[in-house]
Formats: sequence, structure tokens, C-alpha cells
Amino acid sequence: MIIIGEKINGSIPSVGKAIASKDADFIQNLAKIQSEAGATYIDVCASVEDSIELETMKWLIDLVQEVTDTPIAVDSPNVNVCAEALKFCKKPGLVNSVSLEGDKADLIFSIIADTKWECVALLCDDTGIPQSAVKRLEVFTGIMEKAKKHNIDPSRLHIDPLVEMLCTSEDGIKMVTDVIAEIKSQYPTIHVTGAASNISFNLPVRRLINQGFVVLAMNAGMDSVILDPLNRDMMGLIFATEGLLGMDEYCMEYIGAYREGIFGPIK
Amino acid sequence: MIIIGEKINGSIPSVGKAIASKDADFIQNLAKIQSEAGATYIDVCASVEDSIELETMKWLIDLVQEVTDTPIAVDSPNVNVCAEALKFCKKPGLVNSVSLEGDKADLIFSIIADTKWECVALLCDDTGIPQSAVKRLEVFTGIMEKAKKHNIDPSRLHIDPLVEMLCTSEDGIKMVTDVIAEIKSQYPTIHVTGAASNISFNLPVRRLINQGFVVLAMNAGMDSVILDPLNRDMMGLIFATEGLLGMDEYCMEYIGAYREGIFGPIK
Repeated sequence: MIIIGEKINGSIPSVGKAIASKDADFIQNLAKIQSEAGATYIDVCASVEDSIELETMKWLIDLVQEVTDTPIAVDSPNVNVCAEALKFCKKPGLVNSVSLEGDKADLIFSIIADTKWECVALLCDDTGIPQSAVKRLEVFTGIMEKAKKHNIDPSRLHIDPLVEMLCTSEDGIKMVTDVIAEIKSQYPTIHVTGAASNISFNLPVRRLINQGFVVLAMNAGMDSVILDPLNRDMMGLIFATEGLLGMDEYCMEYIGAYREGIFGPIK
Repeated sequence: MIIIGEKINGSIPSVGKAIASKDADFIQNLAKIQSEAGATYIDVCASVEDSIELETMKWLIDLVQEVTDTPIAVDSPNVNVCAEALKFCKKPGLVNSVSLEGDKADLIFSIIADTKWECVALLCDDTGIPQSAVKRLEVFTGIMEKAKKHNIDPSRLHIDPLVEMLCTSEDGIKMVTDVIAEIKSQYPTIHVTGAASNISFNLPVRRLINQGFVVLAMNAGMDSVILDPLNRDMMGLIFATEGLLGMDEYCMEYIGAYREGIFGPIK
């Protein structure tokens, strides 16, 4: 499983405060503990006002790179910020994110075309988030056409089918799992990702909804996830699910991760 | 989800001790707390030597019935003990269990034929536990032939596909989920059950393996489970999974169970 560690995000109050007060130690600690917990990428999202977003991204990226080699997910709703900020990274990472909105996909795909950068692509367009599997898959087809045009191999894409809150759904997550399964059947080497916690907005004991969601999404084909890698139960459940789904012969990875202290009681 | 509460079992050391010392309060408390936690059936298994098994079952069943109306799952490896012990029950419950071993199924099916008793049937026969999905489904076919002969409606059967430990599996639980899905496709009203914790023998942090298993088995069609209903996280995860699978519109059951205190922080 590809783990995109979500903790360095200015929209989290403690992180926003650390950014405002230039608390480098706080940020660097978040980078270190997420790397140690098994993050594949460290997401960096400034969530500050536009006028200082790029310089803040540079400050954050520089800090992270001083303490870990784990590649960075350059995260901004402004695709021009992503395009500039990825230049601050010492090694290829992940652009988070593009979609079919405006010229986002063309802009980023043209920049990363001849690199090893990967990219998250959300299944939405200028009309918003499509409300049926068929329409979401039409957006997917549009993204794949642009990827082909820029010669981006499917294995460099992390498609986010966009999970909405369960509490307003009449039929659970069937639409999302259908979309995931169809995407993986069309492009077996593509990645499918998503935020593990959007599903549980407005419900009590959110971790239980999130846990069930991740297991079912992995069963459908999700192989990348945006979450807090310090959530030891979620990390352990992901390793457990890989074993249950036959992706971890004799549970060797599960047992290895336990021995490394990724999950289970803190020693 | 049908919850078969597993706590009154003499093979659990504290329960074995309570049975040996005739500690009625201990047994009655186990019955009460499981009912309050949402058990659909209270399993009663003496696990004592043969010569005193039936009288012990009577003592246990009488105790349980003094404190709760929740029906009983009469549990013994000896089908003759089940056949006699179900007579001690004031209302129809669940026989746990028969299989294609010897004449077990014929004996119990003939006794419960004209009653409302339900029955757990394990997918094994005189040769043991078949090691392929095809062979396990052959045992299933044999059980359904006997059920038909005795006019037992499929909705009165809880088929246990027999879950073995994950740590010795090369391909995870695919065989079991395939068997579950095939059984439910042949008989949509049949129940599929299983012990939630067999899967995790010999692995660390067993609860994570058990949790992932229950979610995936429910996705395949499992709608009955043998577990400890005092395990609040597991109970909550089951309600969460029903919501995610579209079996709980707007999560009303999930929210209701939370408000009743079935899961979440103890108030």
C-alpha cells in the first residue's frame, strides 16, 4: 500500500499555528515521525493566503528535506503553485492534485512528462463532482486521454474517485467501489487513491467508518491512501487486509511491520 | 447482522472454573451483558467431560433463561447432547452445529423439522475439512439435500464455511469468500456464519486480522457471526460495514446503535 502522510497541512490548527510562527522544529518532527511510521510520501500543503503560498511551500519543503529522504507530495488547490513548488524538491514526488477542471491536467502533465514525478488526479471537472459512476468514469476517460497525449504512463497516476460522506448515501459506497474496480480493470498498473476519512463526516466514532471503508476500497482495488500514518490501528488494518486479500503470502509483511513497531502496542 | 454471543463456553478458563464451582452469578452475568450488548443468540457450550455434559447444559440453559429472553444457541460437538439439550429451552433457538459427518445432519434436521429452530451447519464431512472451494461446495450440496428431505427452509440454516488460519494461507481468504458468495447466490435467504477469530491464530494483534476478515466476509455475504459482543470496536465495525455496503440507509442503524451505547466510548 502506498501511504501518503497527511499531517503537514496548514488547515490542521496546530500546523497552521506552527506555519504562522515559523516553528521549524514542529514541522520537521511531523516529517520525521510520518517517515518512521511508514509513509511513502510526505504531503505538504500550506493552506495559507495566496500571496504567501509559494514561499510557504518552499519553507516547508526545505524543512522536510532536511530531515527525511521520503519523497514529497506537493499539495495545493492552485495548480500553478504545484507547478512551481515541485521545483523545490530534490527528488521526484507526487503532485496533489489535478482534475479535468480548466487546464490543470494539461499544465501539470506537460511539466512532469519527461520526469519520474507521479500525480494524483481527481475525478471531477468544471461542472463539479459527477453523481453517477458512468459520469465519473467519463471524467476518468478524459484524464487518461490527456495522460496519453503527454506520454504519462498509467503507473504514474493515482486516481482519486472522490469519496463523499456516507451519512447522505442511500446505497453505501457501491458507486465508488464500482468506479475503483472499473478503473483497475481498464489499467491494471494504475494506482487508485483517496482520503481515508472523508467518508465519515458527520457520523459518530468516525474511525470505525474509516476502517471499514479502507478494507472495502482495498478489496475493490485501492492501493494508495491519504491518511495519518501515526494511526497505528489503521496502518495495522491495512497490512492485515493485504494478507486477507492474498497480497502477503504467509503474512510475512504483516509480521514484519508488527516487529518494526508500525502497529500493535507501543514498546 | 445476527450476533451469536460466544462467552458462555467452558473452554474459556474463567467460565470452566465457574462451571466447576457452580458459580451461577458468573454465568448469569455473562448472559445478561451479552444480551445488553446486542447478542441475537446466547451460545451455551459446557466443554466438560461426556458423563456430565448433558446435566451441565441443563444447568447452564436454566440459568440463562432466568435472566434473559434472548434465544439460546445449544452448542456441543456431540450431536446427541444438542438433540437432548434443546428440549430444555423455552423458545426455539439455534443448534450449533451439524455437518455431513456421520448422521449428525439427519438426526438434528429430523428433530427440528416441524419447529422454528435454526441450525448451524459446518462444511465438513467424514473426511475432514475439504481444502478446495469446489469440494466445500459439494459438502454444502449434500447438506442442502438433507435439509430439503426434512423440509428445512434455507432461511433456517446458518452455513459455516469454516475459516482456517490466515498465517498458513498463500492466497488469503479468497477460497472462503468465493464459497460464501456462491452459497448466497444459490440460496439468497440462507445465512452464512463463522467464528470471527479463527482466522488470526498465531498472528500478532489478532483483533486487526479479525476486523479485516469480518468486513470482507460481510462483503461476500456473511450475515451471521460468532463472536464476543462485548468487543465494542468489532460491534461498531459491523454496523459501519452494513452502512458502507448499502444495508443501512443514511446510517440510521449505525447512529441508533451508537446512541444505545453498543459501541463508542463507554458513557
